[in-house]
Amino acid sequence: MTAAQPESTALFTDHYELTMLASALRDGTAQRRCVFELFARRLPDGRRYGVVAGTGRLLEALEHFRFTDAELTALAESRVVDDATLRWLADYRFTGDVDGYPEGELYFPGSPILTVTGTFAEAVVLETLALSILNHDSAVASAAARMVSAANGRRMIEMGSRRAHEEAAVAAARAAYLAGFTATSNLEAGRRYGIPTAGTTAHAFVLLHDDEEAAFRSQLAALGPQTTLLVDTFDITAGIDAAIRAAGPELGAIRIDSGDLGVLARQAREQLDRLGARNTKIVVSGDLDEFAIAALRAEPVDAYGVGTSVVTGSGAPTSGMVYKLVEVEGRPVAKRSSHKESRGGRKAALRRHKPTGTAIEEVVYPHRGPEPERGEHDRALQVPLVRAGQPVADLPTLEESRERLRRALVSVPWEGLKLSHGEPAVPTVFLG
Amino acid sequence: MTAAQPESTALFTDHYELTMLASALRDGTAQRRCVFELFARRLPDGRRYGVVAGTGRLLEALEHFRFTDAELTALAESRVVDDATLRWLADYRFTGDVDGYPEGELYFPGSPILTVTGTFAEAVVLETLALSILNHDSAVASAAARMVSAANGRRMIEMGSRRAHEEAAVAAARAAYLAGFTATSNLEAGRRYGIPTAGTTAHAFVLLHDDEEAAFRSQLAALGPQTTLLVDTFDITAGIDAAIRAAGPELGAIRIDSGDLGVLARQAREQLDRLGARNTKIVVSGDLDEFAIAALRAEPVDAYGVGTSVVTGSGAPTSGMVYKLVEVEGRPVAKRSSHKESRGGRKAALRRHKPTGTAIEEVVYPHRGPEPERGEHDRALQVPLVRAGQPVADLPTLEESRERLRRALVSVPWEGLKLSHGEPAVPTVFLG
Repeated sequence: MTAAQPESTALFTDHYELTMLASALRDGTAQRRCVFELFARRLPDGRRYGVVAGTGRLLEALEHFRFTDAELTALAESRVVDDATLRWLADYRFTGDVDGYPEGELYFPGSPILTVTGTFAEAVVLETLALSILNHDSAVASAAARMVSAANGRRMIEMGSRRAHEEAAVAAARAAYLAGFTATSNLEAGRRYGIPTAGTTAHAFVLLHDDEEAAFRSQLAALGPQTTLLVDTFDITAGIDAAIRAAGPELGAIRIDSGDLGVLARQAREQLDRLGARNTKIVVSGDLDEFAIAALRAEPVDAYGVGTSVVTGSGAPTSGMVYKLVEVEGRPVAKRSSHKESRGGRKAALRRHKPTGTAIEEVVYPHRGPEPERGEHDRALQVPLVRAGQPVADLPTLEESRERLRRALVSVPWEGLKLSHGEPAVPTVFLG
Repeated sequence: MTAAQPESTALFTDHYELTMLASALRDGTAQRRCVFELFARRLPDGRRYGVVAGTGRLLEALEHFRFTDAELTALAESRVVDDATLRWLADYRFTGDVDGYPEGELYFPGSPILTVTGTFAEAVVLETLALSILNHDSAVASAAARMVSAANGRRMIEMGSRRAHEEAAVAAARAAYLAGFTATSNLEAGRRYGIPTAGTTAHAFVLLHDDEEAAFRSQLAALGPQTTLLVDTFDITAGIDAAIRAAGPELGAIRIDSGDLGVLARQAREQLDRLGARNTKIVVSGDLDEFAIAALRAEPVDAYGVGTSVVTGSGAPTSGMVYKLVEVEGRPVAKRSSHKESRGGRKAALRRHKPTGTAIEEVVYPHRGPEPERGEHDRALQVPLVRAGQPVADLPTLEESRERLRRALVSVPWEGLKLSHGEPAVPTVFLG
């Protein structure tokens, strides 16, 4: 962890959580045993699956969820809550349990992605923190996973930091890496999470110099012949000629950042081959999303640089997950005034698979049972994350979560990997 | 400022900025005097105007843009740059100038929103930081301003934190407030920026209790009769009856969070009036965007709670601004390979107005002159923000920027305030 992490995460909280707490402390209901569930009522428009991301960040933020003097003073000055509530907050430590889908797991409508068990008081104040992190990170990972599928094994570099809030950019780099991106441009993500970073030069570097070839020679002298030269500042054909003149045929890669990338990649490949630079790779970037990536599948592209679309969730910048009270003192509860109905009671989930490993359905059932019959290819989806306030041992690393997702995507029925809009890849079946 | 601000902002930077720096330090071009401009090539699809937001946050982040031992060690370990570059970074202080549109100003395609003047080395490394902050904050403020126009003077509460990255949520609350929102749910935004915070209870609070009226009585005891009771957990009509039974006709407000809000608001108003609660206000929330807000204009709604749509820029989560090198040692430079052409040379801008105060056009012209003729109703748009590395005195407060936007919106031609898609409210005219 780094200095760039907040010392306390306790005010990443909505005002109403503390006023509910104040009222509940006053009337005695604050100590009732509650279960809150975090889930998505639906996937973003036409998506086939969602990817759980952010769990690791949430567990870390939970450890820093402390009302220190700084937070208490701020709350006192703004009169958000009364003195009794401030005293309670001063001692706040989450002492409950958290279960959930591990990072890198797929989710579908109604999947119980996170289950928080504890007193009303200790669990209600975590709503915003949990949702902010999971809604953001899962949105990015869900979009990124589609792009990785579309790229079909080619290298993917996340370079969208400039199009996202500066801290969201770091989390987005993490989520994209989780989803299978190869590297990020974001240096803070490199420091904080150990994600490989990548980058060479922008058009500004070429324009800074007296001519393109001078810029290329300078870059080669500093970064070596395996670097990537950006060839589209003036004229791409002339740029490629200059690149090979400066670097020789052992040049690592060229990057094209504008224009009709398919046509340009083909022309560039022919030109490079003609110049003997058969191993020089072609990196393309510039307004790529999963559809544009897929459209380039037949072209001689070796790597994609993806910016805006991945960090903004490619049309779905949030996952729409909610955090709902489902059980009070063992009694199922649910809102029931409208179309936004929820299912009361704590739930568990398993995913059924064919013997081939292909997923068939998401089964969501009452946690108290009865447990549905479970075939040898089915698996339970929730795992313990926090016990009595402490993160469990052996939480997965980012690399392990990345591998989990890779394996999970192999289980998606082939229709579910299509980029086109449609139904979730597997249906959610609610029992009980 | 608070503990939740990073100590150093220096790694909110893309890898390629430091590799460009390394190459330029090596070949001597790093010290060339440069001008970078930050601008948007276009507004998000069909938008009529953009709102500049984030400048204040950027100036603060710039003061914390320092490569301390922690950053240098991370860069050394990951071998991003060579030792000479690390030594240069250790002494990094921005010593140049920044001019720009003040926060709360409108912008249009090509408006020179920010101009950074300095050596290549000191200016190139600010690209990602500047773009992350302005792209995010302006996206939220631009969407929020449309919602505020649509609400036509009614109270607006930003409550979207849960649908955004936890730090982005704080910045979004600030941007929404800048754009005219009345309050935010986000407690960190309250602490960090002094924005009024608001909130009372969620459905969970009602479900926690043995019945709805018990929950209402508890809330009233803790928060007083001016509170807002959430009446749609079970049945809205019964909920309103229970609310007035518990609070009496002096109840502050009710909130409806689901269903057909127009119909429900009308029914609720009639019911409240019938119960003698003529001053009890009606707050509505639930998937509101600028169009839904406008559609409720004729209904008896007193305040709107807006979540997802405002924090995600209502379909445009980033502003698409870019940071381009436009001048090197006084010589205009520009990329020219494709449709993404840029105009070289440092630019200035003024906005022409009719004698009535209505804006007519955005005039962007070469900074070196000639200055276009300027009528008494026209005004220059850039102001000094940083001089020789130091923020200028008397930077506007958030309240002043909020007032600036309020006045600027009055100058927009009436067609430009329409929510429907169309051309920018005023054309940008490029001279020279």
